[in-house]
Amino acid sequence: MVNVGQHLLGIESLTKEQIVHYLDTAESFIEINERSIKKVPTLRGKTIINLFLEPSTRTRTSFEIAGKRLSADTINISASASSITKGETLIDTVLTIQAMNPDLIVMRHAFSGAPWLLARELPEVKIINAGDGLHEHPSQALLDALTMRRRLGTLENLTVTFVGDALRGRVARSNIFLLRNFGCKLRIVAPPAIAVDEFKAMGVEIYYNLAEALKGSDVVMSLRMKNEYLKDFFVPDLGEYSEHYCITSKLIKENCPDALILAPGPYIRGVEISSDVIDGVKSAYAEQVTMGVAVRMAIMYLLCAGTLEESN
Amino acid sequence: MVNVGQHLLGIESLTKEQIVHYLDTAESFIEINERSIKKVPTLRGKTIINLFLEPSTRTRTSFEIAGKRLSADTINISASASSITKGETLIDTVLTIQAMNPDLIVMRHAFSGAPWLLARELPEVKIINAGDGLHEHPSQALLDALTMRRRLGTLENLTVTFVGDALRGRVARSNIFLLRNFGCKLRIVAPPAIAVDEFKAMGVEIYYNLAEALKGSDVVMSLRMKNEYLKDFFVPDLGEYSEHYCITSKLIKENCPDALILAPGPYIRGVEISSDVIDGVKSAYAEQVTMGVAVRMAIMYLLCAGTLEESN
Amino acid sequence: MVNVGQHLLGIESLTKEQIVHYLDTAESFIEINERSIKKVPTLRGKTIINLFLEPSTRTRTSFEIAGKRLSADTINISASASSITKGETLIDTVLTIQAMNPDLIVMRHAFSGAPWLLARELPEVKIINAGDGLHEHPSQALLDALTMRRRLGTLENLTVTFVGDALRGRVARSNIFLLRNFGCKLRIVAPPAIAVDEFKAMGVEIYYNLAEALKGSDVVMSLRMKNEYLKDFFVPDLGEYSEHYCITSKLIKENCPDALILAPGPYIRGVEISSDVIDGVKSAYAEQVTMGVAVRMAIMYLLCAGTLEESN
Repeated sequence: MVNVGQHLLGIESLTKEQIVHYLDTAESFIEINERSIKKVPTLRGKTIINLFLEPSTRTRTSFEIAGKRLSADTINISASASSITKGETLIDTVLTIQAMNPDLIVMRHAFSGAPWLLARELPEVKIINAGDGLHEHPSQALLDALTMRRRLGTLENLTVTFVGDALRGRVARSNIFLLRNFGCKLRIVAPPAIAVDEFKAMGVEIYYNLAEALKGSDVVMSLRMKNEYLKDFFVPDLGEYSEHYCITSKLIKENCPDALILAPGPYIRGVEISSDVIDGVKSAYAEQVTMGVAVRMAIMYLLCAGTLEESN
Repeated sequence: MVNVGQHLLGIESLTKEQIVHYLDTAESFIEINERSIKKVPTLRGKTIINLFLEPSTRTRTSFEIAGKRLSADTINISASASSITKGETLIDTVLTIQAMNPDLIVMRHAFSGAPWLLARELPEVKIINAGDGLHEHPSQALLDALTMRRRLGTLENLTVTFVGDALRGRVARSNIFLLRNFGCKLRIVAPPAIAVDEFKAMGVEIYYNLAEALKGSDVVMSLRMKNEYLKDFFVPDLGEYSEHYCITSKLIKENCPDALILAPGPYIRGVEISSDVIDGVKSAYAEQVTMGVAVRMAIMYLLCAGTLEESN
Repeated sequence: MVNVGQHLLGIESLTKEQIVHYLDTAESFIEINERSIKKVPTLRGKTIINLFLEPSTRTRTSFEIAGKRLSADTINISASASSITKGETLIDTVLTIQAMNPDLIVMRHAFSGAPWLLARELPEVKIINAGDGLHEHPSQALLDALTMRRRLGTLENLTVTFVGDALRGRVARSNIFLLRNFGCKLRIVAPPAIAVDEFKAMGVEIYYNLAEALKGSDVVMSLRMKNEYLKDFFVPDLGEYSEHYCITSKLIKENCPDALILAPGPYIRGVEISSDVIDGVKSAYAEQVTMGVAVRMAIMYLLCAGTLEESN
């Protein structure tokens, strides 16, 4: 068995072999989620803490379902960083949780790098990063990759185009870290006001024109435009954004009619992506969510594997 | 076994036979809740999502306990509609949840009709309506009916009087839909400012005087006066309301001394109902709550029954 | 087996024998929390409600983990008192919960005495007080005592010094009620503005000088200075407080170099206690949290013991 290490902090530090091992393991959990009895005893008696210090519903729910279907005890801690700590440091918060002997801590935090800080300061903690600030969201990248691989048969040498706010997108960043292991041609298309130059150093091509970027794409991934950032400095409003960057069926038909459409939700119909695209047969939106549960089961299983007894 | 269909959206569309089947099935779960080991393996490996997009504590808790005592995995999503969706539509929110392969979605939503919309747009979802706006609250009507049937021996030909804000009361509406199947004589008594004329078309008699309405009642159901509506257009204040419409022991004694008293909580003692009435021997308040767990177990069981294997 | 009664409301009314029985029982649960499979079937089929009407993360999490590791079904109700009740009384809220047949209600409430009120009015409820206002926090005192007994070999005749806001500290109060059963010498040191005279009647010595209070202490317990109280009437600010009352390694070295350091979190490093003290080898902070889970398992087990069947 490939050793995936103590944590899943980010995709950047994973080897191609480790990535493939996560995906292959996830494949074996897909079928469990389709059974009438969607539950296996694999992690019975394990305690998994979902520590969400930034609001999230879909990711927390996905991790919670994953843990429960593996028979783990799952405990949710959903709080704003300020109310949970009452002045204590993040390290002390996690030190406290760790003292309750959980097997895994699934953590979302608004500060980029928070899970790495904890991994360094608290050597006994085992962390799954469920999104840290603008940085990484590794389980999302793995579920996106699993969806691509199942739909397209391979991850090798794909042309993958990210549309929208990649700068503030931990999803895009983790996907790029993952896909560059497979010789993929990566593109980002976004308004010039969103400075995505940092991605050039990662081998990504930058486009400002959506039609040009889509041309020849195997995969088109719609990124979320966060309302809360808009008024600061990006684009005047969502209306102007959608006029130039909304993924429409006309654009798809003209430039990449066979492309797989991914949209890590939530999305706003008619802003980032039109309804006929998201509801179309090439869209894998629902499949991404389904793969998400399988991928998270695989992550939990692999990180706990060292502590599982033979009988499981 | 009577087929109860894919969802429990409302009472209005149920046949009398289906209603009776829900009640009979609930009877068999009552005893389980009184055991030392209050748990059966019936729904082991099933995933039930409690999607509460409007605040609720007692109903959510009742459904959660029901699911856990059936050994299902229960996941709570309690959020304001705005924060959960971040701009996405309700349909997309539920589509996302559905993609995680739950067996049932228990949904409370502030908009009347929301569960019907979902049932139409997302044919694979299975929904239990836990209250939609001012419209229906079917599990509440079933638990009220079960309480009446156990206390009075029958539901046939009862005189049932609803006291208070039936207009904004999904509880009253679902109860009326249910009881008219049993030849019951139905009455609503409320201040004239609460226009309840729509109920006349459903065969309900409207009263403005509490004593008159109570006379000869077999069941008296106290409805909640919601503070939040009061200042808009109904009655000047709760004080004036209670002066004329508070259910007191004197009124009960004079008009319907043997009547069963129901009060789907929360109530405010001394406003809708006096303490000696709610605490009296004719009050079935606590029994309603107890029946609520049994009824919700029955609903979950019957809606999942088609997917249960022989071995259960 | 020693009878611990129907509830755990506070330490004050416990006998020394009952306290020791709680601690001895907790010892047997410590090992379970260190296993690979951290779960026993002891409370399978029991329903435990965590009713937290005052915000709390760590205590709620500890009780939830304890319940789950005993295989009980645990349901969280976390709400501000106002939103949960919508005008109903606390008694009616708990009456409602009780009607759902839970085996235990773990309750935190902002009002001192709330659990006693409920125990008196609702004779069938079984309550664990998880902190009531400024009054008691019995499970915390038991976990502190268990930590002391394990580290120091005994609870008899210790000199235990509480540093900080004992007045508003239910932790200090419950600890004092507990330790006075064991012939301990008890000290409180706090700014004169915090009037702690009530503790003199309980045999506690009051100090205003930290160094003097620490001299010869076997145990030093840092109490939390709550920001929210500060501006009212105590000390000008946390800076001034920490100048005189922060537990530093220099003070410890000079006055009680072998003392065990306890800090029921959350604490603010550098305000109540310095980082080198809390992180030092004499600090039992993390062990307190670990003992907390074991103690809460013991409480749940002992209060339910009467309803457990032979087969468990």
